[in-house]
This record gives sequence, structure tokens and C-alpha cells, in this order.
Amino acid sequence: MQTHPPLTDRECAELDAHWRALNYLAAGQLYLRGNPLLREELRPEHIKPRLLGHWGTCPGLGLVYTHLNRVIDARDLDVLCVWGPGHGAPAVLAGSWLEGTFGEFWPGMGRDEAGMARLFERFSSPGGLPSHTSPVVPGSIQEGGELGHSLSHAYGAALDNPDLVAVCVVGDGEAETGPLAASWHSNKFLDPVHDGAVLPVLHLNGYKIANPTVLSRIPHEELDALLRGYGHEPLYVTAAPDTPPAEVHRALAAAMDTALEEIAAIRRAAREEGATGRPRWPAIVLRTPKGWTGPREVDGDPVEDTWRSHQIPVKDVRDDPGRLRALERWLRSYRPEELFDGSGRPLPGVLAHVPRGERRLGASKHADGGRLRRPLPLRGPEAFAVPVDRPGASSHEPTRVLGGMLRRIFEDTAQRRDFRLTAPDEAESNHLQDVLEATSRAWQGASLETDRNLGGGGRVMEVLSEHLCQGWLEGYTLTGRHGLFTSYEGFSTIVASMVTQHAKWLQSAREVPWRAPVPSLNYLLTSHVWRQDHNGFSHQDPGFVDHVLTKSPEVVRAYFPPDANTLLCVADHVLRTTDTVNVVVAGKQPCFDWLTPEQARDHCERGAGVWEWAGTERPGREPDVVLACAGDVPTQEALAAASLLREHLPELALRVVNVVDIARLMPASRHPHGLPDAEFEAVFTRDRPVVFAYHGYPWLVHRIAHRPGLHDRLHVRGYRESGATTTPFDMVVRNDLDRYRLVMDVIDRAPGFAERAGGLRGSARDARERHHGWIREHGTDLPEVADWRWPG
Amino acid sequence: MQTHPPLTDRECAELDAHWRALNYLAAGQLYLRGNPLLREELRPEHIKPRLLGHWGTCPGLGLVYTHLNRVIDARDLDVLCVWGPGHGAPAVLAGSWLEGTFGEFWPGMGRDEAGMARLFERFSSPGGLPSHTSPVVPGSIQEGGELGHSLSHAYGAALDNPDLVAVCVVGDGEAETGPLAASWHSNKFLDPVHDGAVLPVLHLNGYKIANPTVLSRIPHEELDALLRGYGHEPLYVTAAPDTPPAEVHRALAAAMDTALEEIAAIRRAAREEGATGRPRWPAIVLRTPKGWTGPREVDGDPVEDTWRSHQIPVKDVRDDPGRLRALERWLRSYRPEELFDGSGRPLPGVLAHVPRGERRLGASKHADGGRLRRPLPLRGPEAFAVPVDRPGASSHEPTRVLGGMLRRIFEDTAQRRDFRLTAPDEAESNHLQDVLEATSRAWQGASLETDRNLGGGGRVMEVLSEHLCQGWLEGYTLTGRHGLFTSYEGFSTIVASMVTQHAKWLQSAREVPWRAPVPSLNYLLTSHVWRQDHNGFSHQDPGFVDHVLTKSPEVVRAYFPPDANTLLCVADHVLRTTDTVNVVVAGKQPCFDWLTPEQARDHCERGAGVWEWAGTERPGREPDVVLACAGDVPTQEALAAASLLREHLPELALRVVNVVDIARLMPASRHPHGLPDAEFEAVFTRDRPVVFAYHGYPWLVHRIAHRPGLHDRLHVRGYRESGATTTPFDMVVRNDLDRYRLVMDVIDRAPGFAERAGGLRGSARDARERHHGWIREHGTDLPEVADWRWPG
Repeated sequence: MQTHPPLTDRECAELDAHWRALNYLAAGQLYLRGNPLLREELRPEHIKPRLLGHWGTCPGLGLVYTHLNRVIDARDLDVLCVWGPGHGAPAVLAGSWLEGTFGEFWPGMGRDEAGMARLFERFSSPGGLPSHTSPVVPGSIQEGGELGHSLSHAYGAALDNPDLVAVCVVGDGEAETGPLAASWHSNKFLDPVHDGAVLPVLHLNGYKIANPTVLSRIPHEELDALLRGYGHEPLYVTAAPDTPPAEVHRALAAAMDTALEEIAAIRRAAREEGATGRPRWPAIVLRTPKGWTGPREVDGDPVEDTWRSHQIPVKDVRDDPGRLRALERWLRSYRPEELFDGSGRPLPGVLAHVPRGERRLGASKHADGGRLRRPLPLRGPEAFAVPVDRPGASSHEPTRVLGGMLRRIFEDTAQRRDFRLTAPDEAESNHLQDVLEATSRAWQGASLETDRNLGGGGRVMEVLSEHLCQGWLEGYTLTGRHGLFTSYEGFSTIVASMVTQHAKWLQSAREVPWRAPVPSLNYLLTSHVWRQDHNGFSHQDPGFVDHVLTKSPEVVRAYFPPDANTLLCVADHVLRTTDTVNVVVAGKQPCFDWLTPEQARDHCERGAGVWEWAGTERPGREPDVVLACAGDVPTQEALAAASLLREHLPELALRVVNVVDIARLMPASRHPHGLPDAEFEAVFTRDRPVVFAYHGYPWLVHRIAHRPGLHDRLHVRGYRESGATTTPFDMVVRNDLDRYRLVMDVIDRAPGFAERAGGLRGSARDARERHHGWIREHGTDLPEVADWRWPG
Repeated sequence: MQTHPPLTDRECAELDAHWRALNYLAAGQLYLRGNPLLREELRPEHIKPRLLGHWGTCPGLGLVYTHLNRVIDARDLDVLCVWGPGHGAPAVLAGSWLEGTFGEFWPGMGRDEAGMARLFERFSSPGGLPSHTSPVVPGSIQEGGELGHSLSHAYGAALDNPDLVAVCVVGDGEAETGPLAASWHSNKFLDPVHDGAVLPVLHLNGYKIANPTVLSRIPHEELDALLRGYGHEPLYVTAAPDTPPAEVHRALAAAMDTALEEIAAIRRAAREEGATGRPRWPAIVLRTPKGWTGPREVDGDPVEDTWRSHQIPVKDVRDDPGRLRALERWLRSYRPEELFDGSGRPLPGVLAHVPRGERRLGASKHADGGRLRRPLPLRGPEAFAVPVDRPGASSHEPTRVLGGMLRRIFEDTAQRRDFRLTAPDEAESNHLQDVLEATSRAWQGASLETDRNLGGGGRVMEVLSEHLCQGWLEGYTLTGRHGLFTSYEGFSTIVASMVTQHAKWLQSAREVPWRAPVPSLNYLLTSHVWRQDHNGFSHQDPGFVDHVLTKSPEVVRAYFPPDANTLLCVADHVLRTTDTVNVVVAGKQPCFDWLTPEQARDHCERGAGVWEWAGTERPGREPDVVLACAGDVPTQEALAAASLLREHLPELALRVVNVVDIARLMPASRHPHGLPDAEFEAVFTRDRPVVFAYHGYPWLVHRIAHRPGLHDRLHVRGYRESGATTTPFDMVVRNDLDRYRLVMDVIDRAPGFAERAGGLRGSARDARERHHGWIREHGTDLPEVADWRWPG
């Protein structure tokens, strides 16, 4: 298979020069604020006051950068590199500076002495360049904070990008995380015809912060078995502290050539020769000493090739002249005078293998995915809406209706291939099965005759890992494509920390002038807390929205459409947005239809509004009480309560308000979707009591509806962590969200109604008692609950 | 190696009878509410009104239950089984019922017809038995909700239980999750001398809800390589729909015998022959058809061995006579008349291999770990406290001081071995390195000469996976031992969903009368949001506490000790508690000492209190303003603000309040630690403005301090998602939590001080401006910030 010639001595020397320059620049970022070219002897004042950053992983990342340059240039490849060890930002920044992209994106930081000095000075300085990869790094789609997401990001980037090679450097620390461990099996979902390739480079750096890594300390046979077990064909490159760099350059160049030739052969076989089944994709295992080329020892302790080179390998250099000299010896070991000319420009030999233009890693169009984004061809919610004669007269499964819309999107993007649905084995369970009429599930595993809707270039991604669903979709949207992640609400918290990292990326990216807006990350949370009758307490957690809404208001949104038509409107909206995280919560069980398509559009545009037909307001006077609701089940219970009140207490002026876009409750100063005070008061009145039936934990409403004077008149019902394997109505009763409780709440708060409405209040209390008795005896909901007369 | 004889025909028949009984009982739970022994023809009224439960995994789990019984009985083993596919509760309940434990724990549900009928009726009924494994299941430590934690639980249970064999059934769906994928490498941390064995049984059931599973569809060679890559010696047992059960019984018995003999040999080698290094532990791969022995087809669609048998394989049996007959044929295929006597008691042959007494799986003492719990030998916080002359005169690293206490716990439990520390490679980084003087890090990987504190029976568990740290500790505490999980605060959210499951387990377990209280799950969150100067924005998320506090008040606690001595008191407390999740947030950076050991104990016992020495109150009159604080950095800033106010506005009566136990803010009716209203008012006054400097997201304080009249006088500062790689003081300025901002806040709220204090307010504003200029120019904190004069 190996058809490539070995490196010439000259190539070897050129690559080594580039790598030395990269290491020099990485170390310079950690230490120097003056004398960047070491034109004079290093003095304390040349050293930064705070030494912050991570050296250990840089030489290995730099080596990959150097060698990717060569193969990109030689083979004219479209490569995106995902740098898993995000702490190694100095190496990535150095690579970008050397190829020129850094200076193109960040004026004043170009390839000369002033630019180099500025790069050094800004790195890890307050208000400067973060010490991890982040949106400021050209060519990066990786927030270098929490570890473990790189490989799923690389797969997400490769999907539907048939010409792309997504290289992913996987750190051996990161490889211990759950999300990364699961990601290896992503190759079972990668289609060699429609998708690009992913080339993992497992970087065995040996150590984490203070411990050896698991994968660096298992026997070679086990490591080899592991990678083969993951379905890869591994290629090994090994460097010890004493290995001559030229040997390593030759080995890594050969491994990369082999890997790329294997990838080309796989593509050819699948695309031209009709090969089916899952190919064995190559993977490179690169074993290098941690902090390679750094100081061997400091004060008698070994540093290179140990955990001691994780961060700053030589500390206290400003105060300790011996250490200052050690640092200088180290920096001079790269022979900067052979790498940069008198004005700090890299010499031609250093740049001999750097690709040109858009082929440079830092210039990858995929890494600035907003540039590639095309709006989805959406037909508008009306095309899929259900007819509604009058509120509550019919019912639909909201997610099932949404499935019709998504199916059409799959059909309309069949050629463009820029829309994907990810789900932890729940697309059908969440009643989105209609999409499978337009596409199938991505699957490169073995197939059986009994299989349905598997393989064949499908764009539904199902795996029992929320981490993969999230990571794939992050990679897909960051590279400019669109998608939706559907999950059981209760298990969406599995990816709470991932959405934190993504939200922080989006927030930071908004401040990077050259980054174009990327498609939003959209969640459809269903099989929600109120309808886990089937699964019970362990499946009940509506807190994902609470978590998401802790992030910057600029980038987070949450929607609670109350029926099928409003879900369509919300979905149509979020699929058009950019640079946000949108959480949509909607049920899959039959749900009463409340709004016509036109009403739904109008209501969703307002985000929150009065449902006049449901209340008993008299024109021209303030209502006695506002009964508000958000979420499908709370809306059903609130409307049932309103109906009871209309029938039995018609003299009460009740206003019914429904909230779809929960951020509407926030002040306009706090969230882009917040209602200005006057508009808020037009809906919620200035001083009337508000009883609020909310889908999730009640305090979220208190938190976000943080407006003067509102707190004491706002009474919120919601999930309060009381659940079991039980019936739907029992769930709302247990949590005091049921219609009868809401009737009692309204009466208790309606000024002057305590006495007049004593009878109704008693009846409501009795109905709850009757429920308790009934469910104990029959194990089902009260018959009268299902058979309900709606207002309007 | 294989020394065991094959099964005799009689043994085979007995095991098969047990398995058939188990399958019958599992199916009965899903369907029947009458006629449990099928003494008459099945009629619609015998069928439950709601069919809820999961059949697909039950026959496989049942097979494992049956065969574990045999080897436990034959070899007198101490076995705990962790059932990963928790949806298969019917099989586990059936096994428990057959061995008698179920009836012993749950009166009225014993081994007779009435008990069987009651088991069937209560399963998946409102208020009855949850459809997943949960605390009501004898012998279980597994909340069968979110998937992926079984294997880490099994390892946690095996640690320091040298005689235990923790069997773990890993579902092939579950195996796709990140946490499970990471768990395989737990064997690198299992010490064959001090720890028990873990025997994974990978159950290749073929399908998830609607999709094939990845591991069931990779070639045998890949699967074999994968398990060997994980360090296991795999043993295979394979059943197809047509395989005669006797063949499978023989194969599984042989595999279990082989595995247990290998485990015995490993133990002998390590314990008697001094073998070192990591053994290759056995693992069993059990491939069976999903829904094996269930209906082959329903209405022409294949059901057995497909995803269609995931839940209820034959639906609508009440209304469709043909399906009712199909169900009856299926149930009768187990020949219940050969399994149970006339009164519903299992016949002796069925129970021939069921172990006796505590050896029964449902009677495992480990699964009711509270029974094994011994209080830790704690010496009290004073033994480790730092002397404090006056507030703010000295400083210590709180976690470093805590390390001294933990070290002593390790020393004092050297023989008992019932205390562990887990950390994602951060024990040293979090300044707990002193513990390594008393123990080392668990490590069975290869060792190098340069290694420090690795191996040798160590009880510090370090792996770069928060999921493993959490899962191990859950397994360890649920089996009655003690521990602490230390994590960077920002990445603790990685395990948000796991703590949900654990909290739900604890809450449910409190309602199970026979479960004894287990040691609490304790977190030490450090390297927190205010001191991520080093790492920046991606490492800043204080929201884990917010998430934990969404769970039931009975089981969740959060503490913010302001200095080293208070941290000791809090740690001493939480290590004595049971059945709760305790989150302790404390810094690792030098922090001023505020309280003497005695003051610290008193303050922590109260949980929240007035620091008279820090304020300027006049005896006998209410203060003008309360300045409250929670968290080490907010306390420092609040005390600096108090100091400024004392010096420059002595006529203001300022009360300084510090809160350690954040639940103190809650009403007593809402949380066991909540302060009664009168006590709350004694601290926070009845009507004075309260400026609150809080460690995390400010709304948490608003949420939990939900008391009448408080909302509008409470003004909270905290983290508001503004971060970067910057200095510590810049972090508080960016988030308006700094001393100068707090001075301005107090002045703005102190009635009547607006004019008098205008000058001071201006100076405070100027100081913030000075900071902005200084940090832009120097990249460090203002010199005056470090050099501070404290009150008191």
C-alpha cells in the first residue's frame, strides 16, 4: 500500500526548522514580554510577571501541525484539525502565526518582530489571548476547556463534507473521559460516500497534570487490540527523549502518507467501485515525551518526559538567575537565529511546506462555518399545521406533527445534505418516525434482513450516547450546517457541561470580528417530566432549561409550545436562527389543539400573550386574577381550571396568559427577548395576582420574572421533585399542578372571593380526594379527567 | 485451567426450570392482574389496564440470575450483582421473589399465590413497584434510570471488599454511553490484593429501543480485540432463537466456572504468591436474542430477536382475542404447572440451586450498605486547625489544610480501608497532596522509576473522568464506605445527571423501611470560578450547586466555608452524615484566616451568623444595612468593603453576616436546615436592606431565600457569566462583586446616606476605574488590593 517516497534530508531539515520555530514560539508565549528574538541576553524584565500556560502538550501538537502542513501542501488536501488537548493553544497559535493566518485575522500580530512580541505579550494576559484554544484561534472549532469532545466534533465536521479530512488530535488524558471513549465508535456512522474522513491522531504524551495516563501505560498489544477493536487500522510513531528528531519526522511523514493513501483508497472503493460495508479507517498513534525538547531537569528533578512539564517547566525565572539561564539555554536550543531573519520574519526554509491560501489550517473555511452556512429551505409552519376548529376540540401528538415538517426538510435538503437529526435511540420513541420516510439512519454496521431504515446515506444519527449526539451536532453546526438534537427531557442533563462549553464558545465567538454566525444548536426535549408514567421517577428532571438559562442571555433561548401548531412555529423559528442554543420542550403524547395555524404564528411571534377566549375578563377593566401557563401539560391543566372557573364562578374576571418563549418574562434589559415593562404589564397587569402553571421547577419563573413588585404577587406551580411510576393525572396532582389545585390557587388569591367561592373551592378539594381514592383502587386516572369540556 | 465438570442433565433441567419460572414471573408482572397461575383460561379482566414495562432484556438477565445462583451456591461466594439494564426490573424482581428475599423484605409478597398475584399487580402500578431497578429491589444498588453507570458502580463496590465478586451485567445499549465506555479501564485501578473482583457480563441483546446496538453488529474479531484491548480475557456464550436452552445453560455454566476459577487464581497469585502487575481479569460476553422465549411474531412482524420486543411484545391483549390467546400460549410455554405447586409455591427442583441466607443475591449485605457502615474515626477539626490571632492577619490554602485532616483519616483507616478520595487527576492540583503521605494512588498500570505515589494498595483514585470518579464513589458509598470526590468546580457539571440519579436513589431509599442509611456522597469543589485566572472562561461555571439544589431538600446540602478552619468543620460534619449529597465549595489559593478554631466550630454549627467584629453596629439598635457573604472570595471582598466603610463612613451601622450552610437561607418548612423565620430575622433583620455577596450565580440566593418581604430588600451580587483569562481581582470587578462595588451597593441602599456618603461612593467608583487602567497597562492586580487592612 505504501507508495510514497521517504522524506529527503532537505525536507527533513525544513520540517524540523518549522517544528523548532513552532516550539520556540510556543515557549515564547509562555515566558517572554520582551527580547522576543533573543537578540540580547535574557534579563528578568523580559519575563512576564505571571507565567500561565501549558507547555507539556505543545511539542507534540506542533509536530502534528508541521506534518499536516506538508501533506496538505503535497496532496492539496482540504483539512480541518481539531486539537483535543486545547491547553496546547500556544502550539496552535504558533502554527497559525507561522503560516500567516494569525496576522491576517489579528492586525498587528503578523510575521515580524513586532507581531511576534505582541503574540507573546497578549498570550495569557488579562484581556488577551486565552491560554486554551477558543474562537480567537484561527482554524479552531474547539473550546479548549472541558476535555473529551474533540473526536465527536471531528466526526460532526466530517459528516456531509465528502472532500474533507478532519484530523483529530486526541490527548491521552482526554482519552480517559467518557465522551471521548464513546466517540471512537463514531466510525460506525460515517459513510465513505457522502461523508469526509476522520483521521484520529492519538497523542500518547504519557502524563496528565500529576499522573501517568492509562493508555500510555498499557502494553502495546493491548493498545493495538483496543484500536482494532474500535475498528481502526493503527499506525505507530514513537519518540523517546533521545530519538533524533529526523527519525521521528521520517516516521510521522510515512504514517501520514500511509493514512492518507488508505483514506484515498477507501473513498475510491466506496465512491467508484461500489464497495459497501464499513471500511477500516486508519488511525495514528503518536508517542512522544511530554514537554519534549524542553528542559531535561530542573533542580535535579526530571522534567522532560514527566508530569512536571505539564505547565510551566521552569518556574520563578525572574527571581532565580540560574533558572533564567536555564530558560535561555532552552530557548536558544531551537536556534532562533536560523529560523527568523533580522526583522523577525520566518526564513523561507521554515515555511517551505506551509500550504497556501485557504489550504492553511488556520484558514479552513470549515472552522469559520458561518461562512458556509446557507439558510435552510423552510416552507413555513402553515404547510404542516393541523386544522383547528375550536380550542380543545381535537388533539395531536405535537412531535409527530413536527416530524412531518422535519421530513420535508430532509427531502428539501436531499441534495444539499446540510441538515441532520441526532437522537439517543429515541427518534421513533419521540414520535418523529415520519422523518424516516425521507431519509434513513446513518449506519455502517452489519445489516440484517429484519432491519428497517438503516444505512444508505441516512442523515438521522442514532446512538445511545447523548454525548455523541451533542458532540456530533456541535461539530456539524460549527462547520456551518443545521440540525436538531432530540432527547428525553430527563436525560438531557447528561450534556449539561457540554452545552456550557458550547454556549461559552458562542458567546466568545460573537466578540471575534471575523467569525460569521453559525447555525444554532437546537434541542427538542420531549418524553418530558409529566409523561414519564411509563418510566417513573428516575426519568423525571426538567432542569436542563434551568442550566441552559444560567448562560449568557445573548446565546440562550427556551420555548414551551403548548400544542402542535405552536411547536411548528417555534421549530420554524429556531431553525432560522444563528449563534444561539435553543431549547424546545414539547410532548409526544396526544395534546389538545388550542390555536389555528394563524393564531399559532401570531402567538409565537409575540412569545407570550392573553388567550381572551379562555378567560372571563370584562372589557375595560382589569382582571381579578391572571392564570398563566407555559408548557403543554400546564396549559391543559390551566385551561381546565379556567373552564371550571368559568362555569362555576362566572363573576370572577380571569385572564388566561400563555407563555411560549420563556425569556419574555425577563426584563428587556436582561435578555434580548425580554418584554419591556409596559408590554409586560399589558399582559400580566400592574398589580393583579398571577398564578403561574409552569412546566419545570417553579423557581425558574421567579428567577427570570425578576421585575419590581412582581415577586409577591406571583405564585408559581411546577414540578417539585415528586414522582413515581404513575398516571399522567396523578403526576400533576402529586406536584400540585392539577386543575383543581389551580382553581383553589386562583380562589385563594382573588381579592374578595374567599367567601363567595368557598363552595367551589371545597368541590375542587373533594375532586383531589376522589382522585387519591380512585387511583388507589383502580390504578388509572379518573374517568372525568379525560372527558373534559374546554372553554372557548 | 478448566477444572470444573460439565453440568449434569439434572442440573441442566433444574436450572432451566428456574429460568422458566423467572421468565414466567417477569412476563406475569407485565401483563397479569389476576389468574397468576393460569389455572383458568386467560380473560381480558385478568390483564392490567395499562401495560407498562420492558420485556426485551428480561430473559437474558434472568439467565444470569439463574446461573449466578448456581455458582454462588456451589462455591459459597459473596456476590453482588449490578444490573446495568435497569429496565429489566421484572427479571430481577422475579429472581428475588423466587429466592424468597422479596417476600422477606416486602410482607404480603412472599412465595405463594397471593404473593405472586400481589407482585404482578403492584409492578408498574401507580404507587407500586417502579418498572426499573430502584431501592425497593432487594440486592440492588442500581437506579435503573439513566444508563451507563453500572460498571463503575460495580468497581466502586469491589474496592476494599477483597472477598466480593461484583458481577456487572452491561447492556449493549448502555455500552454505547460515554460513562460506560470509560468504565472498562477501571481494571487499571483494581488491586487484586485489597480489592474484590469485578466480573463484567456484556449482554449482547442486539437492539435498543428501535435500533441495533453497535457492539452486537461489529465482527467477532473486533469485539474480541476490543475486550482484550480493555485488558480482559473474554469468554463467549452465544444463543440464537433456535439454540436449545440446555446448550446455553451448559455453555454459560462453563463460562462462569472458568471465570470464577480465573478470579480465584488471580487472587491466589496476588495474595499468596506475591504476583504484581495487572492481571487479565475475565469477562463474559453473553449473546442472546432480545426478548428470547417471547412471541416469535405478532401479526406477521418478527418480534423475538428484534427491537419489537423491547417493551410490551404483544399489545392490546384486552381488546383483541387473538392477541390474548397469543399471550396465553406464550405464558403457558413456560409450563407454570411444572414450576409452582397448587398454592403457587415454587417446586423444589426450581429452587435446587438457589443459595441460602445472606448468600442470596437479594440478601447481599453490600447492597444494603448502610448495614455495613461504621462511622469514620474522626479526630475533630481542632486537631488540624490553624491558629488565628485576629481576623485577616494570616492566610492559608484551605484545601491544603483540609489535606492534613484527610491524611489523618487515611492513616486511621489504614486497616479498616473504608475511606477513598476520587479525583479527575486533580488531587495535587487541588492542593490535597498531603494525603499522599498516608496512602498512594491506586494504580495497576506499568510503573516507571520516575513515578511517585503510585500503586501499592493506594486509596486515592485518580483518572481523568469525572464520570468514573462519581460512579466509583457512588458504588463505594452505597456499599457502606466513605469518601470524597474533589473536582474543579467548573467541570463538576459533567456529572450533573449522575448526581440526579443518585439523589433520586437516596430520596427513594429513605422510604424503603429495610434500607439502612448509607454514607453521604461528598463533593469538594475547588479551583473555583473566582480563581480560574489561569484557565479562563471555559473553566468558570459555579452552577453545579444550583443543579444539586433542584433535588429534594431532604437529600441535598451545600456549604461555602469562608476560610481554612471553617472548611475543616464542614468536612468533619459532612463525613459524619448519611443519605445526603453534600457539596462543599472552597478555594485552594491562599485565603485569609477569619475565625479561630472555636469560632469556626460555633459558626459552622449555626451555619450562618453575624460577624460582630467585622461590622459597625451599635448595640440595641438595628443596623442600617446588612452586608452578607457566602464563599471565600465573596467573604474577602465583603470584609474589605466593611473595612472601607468602617474607616470612611463610621456613622453607618453595618452588620456583616456570613453564610456557610446555604440552606440556612431557606424557610424551615422547605429544608431541614432552613432557619425558622424568627431566627432568620435575628440575623438578617426584619426590614433592613441586605447586600449579599455570593459565590455563584446570584439568583440561587433569591430562589432559596424565598421569604415574605425579603425579595425586594435583597440585593445579590455573584458570578454573571463574565470571565476571561485574567487576574483574580479583575474577575470580581468584571462581575461587580469587588469591594468597591459592594461599598457602592451598601451606600446606595443605606437609607439617608446617599448624600453623606457621596464622597466615599465617588472614591470607590474611582478605584474601579483605576483598576481598569492598571490592568490594561500592567497585566496584574492593583498593588493596593493585595495589601489590605482588615476590620476587627
